[in-house]
Amino acid sequence: MGRVTERRKVIRIRDGAVSTRPDTLVAEEPLEIRLNGKPLAITMRTPGDDFALAAGFLVSEGVLAEQGDLQNIVYCAGATVDGSNTYNVVDVRTAPGVKIPDITLERNVYTTSSCGLCGKASLDAVRTTARWPISDTPPVRVDPELLASLPDRLRAAQRVFDRTGGLHAAALFSGDGELLDIREDVGRHNAVDKLVGRALQSGGLPLSQAILLVSGRASFELAQKAVMAGIPVLAAVSAPSSLAVDLAAETGLTLVGFLRGRSMNVYAGEERIALQAAPARG
Amino acid sequence: MGRVTERRKVIRIRDGAVSTRPDTLVAEEPLEIRLNGKPLAITMRTPGDDFALAAGFLVSEGVLAEQGDLQNIVYCAGATVDGSNTYNVVDVRTAPGVKIPDITLERNVYTTSSCGLCGKASLDAVRTTARWPISDTPPVRVDPELLASLPDRLRAAQRVFDRTGGLHAAALFSGDGELLDIREDVGRHNAVDKLVGRALQSGGLPLSQAILLVSGRASFELAQKAVMAGIPVLAAVSAPSSLAVDLAAETGLTLVGFLRGRSMNVYAGEERIALQAAPARG
Repeated sequence: MGRVTERRKVIRIRDGAVSTRPDTLVAEEPLEIRLNGKPLAITMRTPGDDFALAAGFLVSEGVLAEQGDLQNIVYCAGATVDGSNTYNVVDVRTAPGVKIPDITLERNVYTTSSCGLCGKASLDAVRTTARWPISDTPPVRVDPELLASLPDRLRAAQRVFDRTGGLHAAALFSGDGELLDIREDVGRHNAVDKLVGRALQSGGLPLSQAILLVSGRASFELAQKAVMAGIPVLAAVSAPSSLAVDLAAETGLTLVGFLRGRSMNVYAGEERIALQAAPARG
Repeated sequence: MGRVTERRKVIRIRDGAVSTRPDTLVAEEPLEIRLNGKPLAITMRTPGDDFALAAGFLVSEGVLAEQGDLQNIVYCAGATVDGSNTYNVVDVRTAPGVKIPDITLERNVYTTSSCGLCGKASLDAVRTTARWPISDTPPVRVDPELLASLPDRLRAAQRVFDRTGGLHAAALFSGDGELLDIREDVGRHNAVDKLVGRALQSGGLPLSQAILLVSGRASFELAQKAVMAGIPVLAAVSAPSSLAVDLAAETGLTLVGFLRGRSMNVYAGEERIALQAAPARG
């Protein structure tokens, strides 16, 4: 795409020494996602994989669940005064018969819930809209040692981060540790949306045998994205939030946090972690 | 507030040894922000400072600019079926005469711009809605050594992070390095909104002599929030994005990234960094 990074002049200060040089930055541009011609959301993202980003976003929102739900995705020309194409507006057209949930510009799944706006309502909204309940048969079963090896492999596969230091990464691994896909983006949610969208486009949903690894924290929204794609295991390098843990517990998602070195915390779904393989200390 | 952290059971794996214990997690709950009774946005946030968060969000959106623009903020009772208060819905009422910009649920400042959806439009939208152009008189002038000392002081002042590892932090410092305020939140934007909102509530806008330090990356939206509050210096521990640098250059914001140890990169507004005080190497 050529716009993943951009160059800018920077003044570097290193231990008191000052120098001026060009620097490589991660590109950030707005993307407007339209659904059947109607503006739905705007996200700040790193350009590239825009169709996948839009498709994955709509999986998270409960609009799309399988390849056949999608008719096509196009860049909207004429989004500017002079009619040129900024490649920052995409329109997702659903296949005939796909029911469009009542979604507005923000995720009002929370507000329409009967119990009002609270964490419980957020959990209920995901559970009732999920079209791929987590159902890994046979169950995914992951060795802790294998899980522990994944962050290094994520880091090694990150291309743009090395140049800019400015990107979140998300990757899908198979149950036996094969790297299936990796995406980088200035926004952590976008990286996951791009992964899920690419899976949808290739007929790969639900991702019922996959491990999703994210470079940062595990928020409610990231757990939501895993659940909506039918992913059974979400692992994060940093801390989860309370609501992410609650969602994992309610939906059967395995949630691992603080995955660093040979250590990790398992917050939910421990039946997928091969704990008996780990000898007790001493 | 009592809900900043929550306890959950966790299975810890440390070098093969497995143990179960309670763990402290950062709390995450949805907050719906209403403007004069009309739902405007929902953000996932760490409970606490909710009024400040709502006020700061509305500064960023160009609705509020000074204490007098605000009539009051209340939690909405009756947001649930049984009429109880979840403390997750706030209504911000503006003072008579305050003009409400045409904002919808998402930040459609982008879409209403004449040049269509592109980075340039995003920059223009901030510039045209900013009610506090950056105008530090006398100019803020910061010694690089002082800047270099701020991340350690941010870290030392973070209370919840130490217990949960799950929080972004943002802090305001005076030009001579005094810590003015610090906020932590599961969402990086929320932490900045809380700082700006508290300043608005106490009559402290524009923050024309302040340095804003953020614990992570400098995105376009964080730069936008600095500009809308009239803050002259934004420093980030990690990388900025291309659009954050462009916004800083256009609005006169000083943008420092990769502020680590005694090193940093200055991407814009270098006139506020006392470079001549730094001896050349060798």
